[in-house]
Order: sequence, then structure tokens, then C-alpha cells
Amino acid sequence: MDFLRVAGAQLNLVVGDIDGNTERIIDAMLWAEECQADVVLFPELAITGYPPEDLVLRSAFIRDNISALHRLAARSGETAAVVGFVDRGVGHRDDAGPARVHNAAALVAGGGLRGVYHKGLLPNYGVFDEDRYFAVGENPGSLWEINGVAVGVSVCEDIWVPDGPPADQVAAGAEILLNINGSPYHRGRGSERQQMLSERARSAGVPLVYLNLVGGQDELVFDGQSMVFDASGDLLYRAAQFEEELFWVDVPLPESGGDVPTALRVSDGDLLDGNPEPPLATHDPFEETEEIYQALCLGLGDYVRKNGFGGVVIGLSGGIDSALTATIAADALGADAVRGVTMPSRYSSTGSVEDSRALAANLGIAFDEIPVEPPFTGFLEALGGAFELTEVDVAEQNLQARSRGAILMALSNKFGGIVVATGNKSEMSVGYATLYGDMVGGYAVLKDVSKMLVYELARWRNRNGEVIPQRTIDKPPSAELKPDQKDTDSLPPYDLLDPILERYVEDDASVDEIVKEGFDESTVRRIAQMVDRNEYKRRQAAPGVRITTKSLGRDRRLPITNGYGD
Amino acid sequence: MDFLRVAGAQLNLVVGDIDGNTERIIDAMLWAEECQADVVLFPELAITGYPPEDLVLRSAFIRDNISALHRLAARSGETAAVVGFVDRGVGHRDDAGPARVHNAAALVAGGGLRGVYHKGLLPNYGVFDEDRYFAVGENPGSLWEINGVAVGVSVCEDIWVPDGPPADQVAAGAEILLNINGSPYHRGRGSERQQMLSERARSAGVPLVYLNLVGGQDELVFDGQSMVFDASGDLLYRAAQFEEELFWVDVPLPESGGDVPTALRVSDGDLLDGNPEPPLATHDPFEETEEIYQALCLGLGDYVRKNGFGGVVIGLSGGIDSALTATIAADALGADAVRGVTMPSRYSSTGSVEDSRALAANLGIAFDEIPVEPPFTGFLEALGGAFELTEVDVAEQNLQARSRGAILMALSNKFGGIVVATGNKSEMSVGYATLYGDMVGGYAVLKDVSKMLVYELARWRNRNGEVIPQRTIDKPPSAELKPDQKDTDSLPPYDLLDPILERYVEDDASVDEIVKEGFDESTVRRIAQMVDRNEYKRRQAAPGVRITTKSLGRDRRLPITNGYGD
Repeated sequence: MDFLRVAGAQLNLVVGDIDGNTERIIDAMLWAEECQADVVLFPELAITGYPPEDLVLRSAFIRDNISALHRLAARSGETAAVVGFVDRGVGHRDDAGPARVHNAAALVAGGGLRGVYHKGLLPNYGVFDEDRYFAVGENPGSLWEINGVAVGVSVCEDIWVPDGPPADQVAAGAEILLNINGSPYHRGRGSERQQMLSERARSAGVPLVYLNLVGGQDELVFDGQSMVFDASGDLLYRAAQFEEELFWVDVPLPESGGDVPTALRVSDGDLLDGNPEPPLATHDPFEETEEIYQALCLGLGDYVRKNGFGGVVIGLSGGIDSALTATIAADALGADAVRGVTMPSRYSSTGSVEDSRALAANLGIAFDEIPVEPPFTGFLEALGGAFELTEVDVAEQNLQARSRGAILMALSNKFGGIVVATGNKSEMSVGYATLYGDMVGGYAVLKDVSKMLVYELARWRNRNGEVIPQRTIDKPPSAELKPDQKDTDSLPPYDLLDPILERYVEDDASVDEIVKEGFDESTVRRIAQMVDRNEYKRRQAAPGVRITTKSLGRDRRLPITNGYGD
Repeated sequence: MDFLRVAGAQLNLVVGDIDGNTERIIDAMLWAEECQADVVLFPELAITGYPPEDLVLRSAFIRDNISALHRLAARSGETAAVVGFVDRGVGHRDDAGPARVHNAAALVAGGGLRGVYHKGLLPNYGVFDEDRYFAVGENPGSLWEINGVAVGVSVCEDIWVPDGPPADQVAAGAEILLNINGSPYHRGRGSERQQMLSERARSAGVPLVYLNLVGGQDELVFDGQSMVFDASGDLLYRAAQFEEELFWVDVPLPESGGDVPTALRVSDGDLLDGNPEPPLATHDPFEETEEIYQALCLGLGDYVRKNGFGGVVIGLSGGIDSALTATIAADALGADAVRGVTMPSRYSSTGSVEDSRALAANLGIAFDEIPVEPPFTGFLEALGGAFELTEVDVAEQNLQARSRGAILMALSNKFGGIVVATGNKSEMSVGYATLYGDMVGGYAVLKDVSKMLVYELARWRNRNGEVIPQRTIDKPPSAELKPDQKDTDSLPPYDLLDPILERYVEDDASVDEIVKEGFDESTVRRIAQMVDRNEYKRRQAAPGVRITTKSLGRDRRLPITNGYGD
């Protein structure tokens, strides 16, 4: 039986680091050559990293990425390589936009550039803005010949539509489909992808290799999990999730019947003789809670590492959000890289310090206790005249939170390390957070994690080694900014709040629609207004890991000035 | 001579406020009826406000906007109205995006909806994301008959391309072109627009009416300046800049030769008899410096008003940025709505308090002096242990700036009023600003104004009544966070910095390209690195008025994690 040895380089690349990415690609090309692979796949826009955003608008950036492509083409050997890059091209758009480049896949082999494919379907929804940058590629049915096998190459979105470019390639005679990706993670995405890809391979009747990027890039986490399907749509191999991996699979080719299709020759060696080697044991996907946990670790870890920080600084309140944040940081970066800081005030419970200290000891992280009273008292003194005859209110509460934020930033400024904010998605959605206070930080690891999911993740993590004190999990949530304060003074209980937020924020459901599902109207209306009125806070929030179909980042673009629903 | 009496409702609408906008539209329809106008034009997406961003993804929002359209159609009379709204439609896109609605213009008359035009060219660059929301409209050559005149209706971008939908309409027999807009301001935009529109009318040989929105919406300012051109491309009328205006013009129609084109009838009254009335005196455009000043006033004013704030709180340092910010605020909102706060520290020059007091007196705004020493000392005390044996550095400087930020926010929390940040574009570009310190605020009026332009605006404003103390203009810029600090300790002089930033930030030029223009290489490289490395600060910055082709807002989308140029 004929087979194609297809290698995959599921790499963790860095946006903008053209030289570094190119070195990584060349190393993997040499590895694939040693493995006698017929072809090796690299992720979408591997040379530039993905998504390069407005770097693509710089002509020097395009030029540098094309120089890099020529460098690696010169290094190519008998193994053909499919490498994502930004290609110049005469744009053809139906509007007046400036896009004149393509999201492209180069085919290189034998020391040269053999061909280029232009992505045909450009996602422009959710977190994607590809119409902003790229012109639509038109390569209907174009095929490449690799060692006598007719290959259809496509890029990411191209495969998501049943009648997209790969369907044309199959119609033209493709014997295998190769699809390179920068496909970001969200909860449940892996199984959606597997189902879609299996269906594409099955209905095409040819094998399909899906190669994905891995790693964190600002708010996005690419989960890897590259997959290989046979011509029946059965999964032959799944690569690791959230980790780099180099792999190869001998992909059996279906019986070649009929004419040899017209294809541009990429490489003209011989296929390997003998029987295909069976694929390595496939990686099972993580169970959902662990998967989310791993996504958070990779997102935070890569943000910290790729931005050159030596460690993180985290304010520990004794509550569950900061405890989980510190735990994720310790797991992602190592305990040595984490500094926990408790900053008690006159309103802090004794538990807040003790539980924070216990957490720090369990994790083995550095721990500081810095009282917030001196600056808080200083603020009250400075404002004494202006605040004369006024009642104590949220102004004083926020001053405590802002004193803490400034202390964390001072530690960061003095000793290095990035401040990681601890707020969760439920709080951020309704604005139950102090801008420039507890929202301070360069990254917000739980920004897309609802409060109920925070609990679930904490319990899951404790089952794998108890680190978060049980009292932290059991105590009622509180900001501790005034005596006996509880979150439920201002918000519905989280097991009621979270489902409403999921409908309103993630599903764009209206108040009326949510009420029809059985929720109390005044509660829903109040929550919707809190969400709408706090857009200004989210606009100034730190980025955080996206784990849902709609995070509070680039995939949710609402006006601040907004008269709807008032 | 036949003429069409075309009215324009250059309104300041509110995004999301469907009910309020609809009332405003109905009022203007009644006014146009009284003026015996044949047709009245409203801005692009008048019913929803522009740009509605992700509100468009909510099905309830679409439904509410269509209900509003039917309400106002029912109120229409003999004057036909062209009203922007979001239409449902079967989307046809070349990718898998979710867009299923159209950016549309309704034609209403005689109590009903007579027709709908779908925008054909969707801008998806700069600040525009229309591919995210809208399907491309296909109405080649569609014409509307208004009182016997064949009319071509189009929306904004449609007219910017020489062979866009209006060209088809002219080919089909349009005797006049009506184009409705939500066209944002940037420096120089008005003359670009006038030149383009004049050319369109001239080459089409038919008159052209361009109706624009006016008002501020988050970062965008719509400048109004609606224009009417005759069939030779000569300007008949220009409406006011940065102000609402209802106007009408008797637009002479070219000799009707040849066949009556096929057109859908919108209204079937008679044109007015007699000679056209001459248009009112046209508004001359502002000279550039004043135009920018007016844009800043409208942007800030509308942000404050439309978000329901009673006033603003501004930290006054004695420097030119805060002085100009307070002056703009007083001009935009009235002196009573502005509270200036000076917050001296041990490093403040005596001038900083005196000059701030003089400015406040000149403007007639409220003025507080609140010393920053008590909280600053409190921070140093709290951090004494942690900072033991360390050198004084930027950590202590930032604590002063953050103490000031927290005081401003406390005043806002206690008394209402939005904090307006005072940083300029030069500082924000290179990150010469303290996150959570002087960057604190809900809006940043000078965010897109370079330092050199700050001086120009200040001098211009003083020529129209001296309010900014001369010493504030003359003193060397300083953050006053350590003894004898000057901006030039950390930055090149602004007359060198600003041209480099303009090339690097606004034009996306590379370091090499800028160096070739004669700038010192190490300076350019250092500035480019400062810009790139401070993306994280800008991501957490307040929005501000856009006045250039590339502000530091939605029109500049760079990754934070970015290995390019390192």
C-alpha cells in the first residue's frame, strides 16, 4: 500500500520574531529530513507568528518575512515543507480597503520555493480580523505533486466550510489534504474540530492532516492538538495539547483510480517502500476542567516568558480568585517565579492573612505582608478637607483597593516581575472591581473564567495535590473593603449570576429572552445594566486568557457610549 | 429650471439610543415637510447611531431598530426621507462569517416604507470593521423616483470609489446622487472629502448631496460639514462643522435628455414651481488649528454628556498638557463643570501650584489643592521593609503619580464627575507615562495630539483670550517626580521626537526608512523600541479623541507580545 510520510511541526512560535521563528522552522525541517518524511507541515503564518495584527501593515515587516522564506527555502532538501507566511500579491477586494497581501502557504523543497497557496476564506468575526489584512486567495482546485502524490494544501478557515477550497482540490484529484492552522482554543473547541475534520476526510474520501500552532499570544491560546485522519475519517493520530511536538505519520493513500491530475511539481523523489509504520499512541484530549486549567497555564506562562519577565507578583486576599491565580502561576512558571503579597487593612478578616500565608507555604512561593494602612491613612488625611462633611462610601473603599494596586506595582517596578490581576469574568462583566485597584496588572489570568468555574478549577487542582486552603474555598466571597462586606450585598449569588451572564454576554441574548427562560426580570435587567455601564472599566483592563467563545477582549467590541437598554 | 429641494438633517445622534434617535428623526421629518422639501436625508445608521459595533450582533437590537423604522415610516408625509438603519437580509459573503444584516438606507414617504438600499462597499480598515457586521449589498444601478426625479441613493464608502454604486446609478439614469454618511473626522479630512465629492459630481454630470453625521462617539468625532454640489462639481452649500444643522437647498437638475429610467417610485408629488431659491451663505471650514480644537471640544463634550456625567475632574500640574486639557474642558462643558486639582509633592516646583491656580482663575473653574505627601509617605512607610537596601528609582516616582491618580479617582467617586487624563500622543507613544498614575481617567482628550501640536493649540487658544499662563507655555516640560527632572532627561526634544513618531506610528515607516530621511539611527531605534515595548500601557489607556489618520486606539492594533524589531 502506498503511503505518504507526513511530518508535523506543532511549534510554539513568537509573533514578530521572524528570525527566531525561521531558525525553529529550519531545525524542524532538518529533523523531518532525518525522519525521511515526504512532507513536513508548519503552522499558519509560521514565519511571522499568528496573529501578527497590524505588523502586517508595515511594508518592512512583509519584506523581512519574505527574506526569511527565501532563507529557509534555500535550506530545504528532499522533504517538502509547507510553511505559512505573508505573501505580497495584487489584492482584489470588493471594497476600498488597503489589503494587498495574502495569508499564504509556501511549498519549498530541494533548495527552492516551488509554489505558493493563498488562503481563500478569511475569518472576520470573533477574534479574527483577516479582512483587515488579507486579500482573498483564488486558487480553485490547485494541486501540488509531492513525490508523485497529488496534494491539496489549504489554510485554516478554508477547511471549515464544506464547499471550501479543499473540496475543489478533491474534485481536481487531490489524494490527500494538508491543512495548516493558527486555530485558537476555547472550551469544547477540540471536539468540534475533530468532528468537522473527520467529516471532511470522510466525505472527500481522502486522508487529511490538520496541523495547528501551539502557545499563548496575548489573549489567545493555541492548543496544538494536530490531527491526522484516514480516508474514512477515522483518527489516526492526535498530537499533544498545549505542548510543542514534532511527529510523523505514515498516511495510507487511497487506491489511485483514473487519471493523474494536473499538479505543480514540488518534489520528485520516491515514496518509501514497504508497509506504513503504525502511528504512535495518540494523545487523548484532556478532560474539560483540566483542559481549561492547562490553557490558563500556557496562556499566562507564554505571556510572561515571551514578554521577558522573570516572574510574577500577585496580591493574595485570602479569597479563591487570588489563590487560584497564584496556583496557576506556580504551576505555569515554577514556585520560584511567584511572589505573593498580602496587604491587610482594618477591614481584613484574620483569615485573609493566615489563609494567604498557608497558600504561599503550600505552593512554596515567596510571601510578603505589607500593610495597606499607612497609604490608606495618608489618603484620608490628604483628602480630609475635601471630604469634610461627606459620608464614607465607595470612594474610601476604592482607596484601599488602589493602595493595594499601587503597592503591587511598586514591587514590580522595584524588583521586576509582572503584576497578575486576579479578577474573574463574573466580576469583570458586572464591573464589581476597582479600576486601578484590584484590576491592576499586566495580565489577568481568570478574566474569562466565571466565578463558578473558578471553584470548579480550584477543586480540580486540589484533587491533584491540595494547595488551596479549604477555608479559602468555603468562605463566602468578599472584597473586604468595609465591615462584614459580602459580594452578595451587591450581586446575586454566583450560581444565579453566572448563568445570566453567560446568556447575556456570551450568547448576546436580550433581557426579554433571558426572562422567558425563567429568571427574575428585575434581576436580569439590573445585571444587564451593570454589564453595559461598566464597559469603560473593561476597556482599561489587562488582557487575559480566552477560554470561551466570547471573552471580554477583542471578540466583544461594544461601544462605551451606549444608549441601548437604558 | 427644474430643481429638487433637498433637506439635510445633520444630527448628533446617540449610539444605541434607538428611541431617542427616532424621535429626533421624526422631528426633523416634520420640519422638512414644513419646508416643502422633496426629500430629507439623515445620516448613515441614523436609527442605531454610528458605529453600533457589536450591538449589531444582538438580534433584539436589530428587531428594535426595524420597529423604529416602521414607526417613523408611518409618520412620513409628502417629503420623502432617506434614513440609515440596519436591515435584515440574506447575507452573501465569501467566507464563513456570521454577517446576515446590511448597512442600509430606507426610503420612506406617504406613511410607508417605499424601498431599501443596501450599502455595497464596506470599509474594513483603520477604525472600520464593517465586514464584521454587514453583508455586501447588491443593488446595481437601482434608482428611486422622487416626485418624478430619478434619484441614486448610496451610503458613505459607496461614493469613495470612482466605479462604486453611484457610478452604476448614473449609468442607469440617475439625475441626482444622494449619499448618507457616518464619516469620522481627522485632520485634513474635510478638504479630501470635498475634492473627491466634487470630482464625483463633475464626472457624473449630476448634482450630489453628501449628508454627514455630527457628534462624538467614544474615540470618533463626526464633523458634519455636509455638502451639496451642482452637476459641474461646484460647491453650492456646506453645512456647519461640529454642530447640528437642519438645512435645505434647491438643487438645480440638469436637462433631462433621453429616456425616463426605470425607477421604483418613492413619492409622486410635483416639484416646486418657479426658480430655485439661492442657498444660504455657505459655512467656511475652520482653519486647521481651530478645527482640531473644535474636534477636541466636541469629542470630550459628547463623551461626558452622552455618558451622563455632570462634570470633569482634572489634575493640574502647572504644565501645558493639563492646562490645555482644562481649557478644552471649560470651553466644551462650561467652567462650572470643571474641577482642577493641584497635588504638589516634595519635588514640585513652586510654579506648579501657582501656575495651576492662575489657570483655574483665568478659566473660572473650581480649584483644589490636595498634597500628595501623606499617601506618598504612607507608601514609603508600608514598603520600608521590602525596599530596604534598595536605591530610590522609578518605583518611588510612580508611587507619586499613582497617589495623584488615586486622589483624582477618589474625588470622582465622592462627588461625581469623570476624571480626564492629560497625557499627549507623544508621551503615550513612547510610554512616558505612569499606568494607573497620570494615565488615570475615563477619557484622554489629548491622546491623539502630539506635544508640538499641544503647544500650537495652546498658543492658538491664547490668541482668542489669554487663559494659559505664559510661564506654563515657556517652561521646559517636566514630570516633576524627582529633583530637577526634565522630559529631555529621558526623551529627545519634542521637535525631534514628534516627526520620528509621526513616521513610525502614523505612517508605519521602518527604522531604516526613517534613518534614510536624515534622522540619527540610534535615536530612531531607541524611540521605535520604546513605542513597541509600551504597547501594554496603551492597551490599558483611556479612550481619547481621534484627530489623525492613526490614533492610538482601534485604528492601531498591534500585538503586545511582539518580537519584531528586538
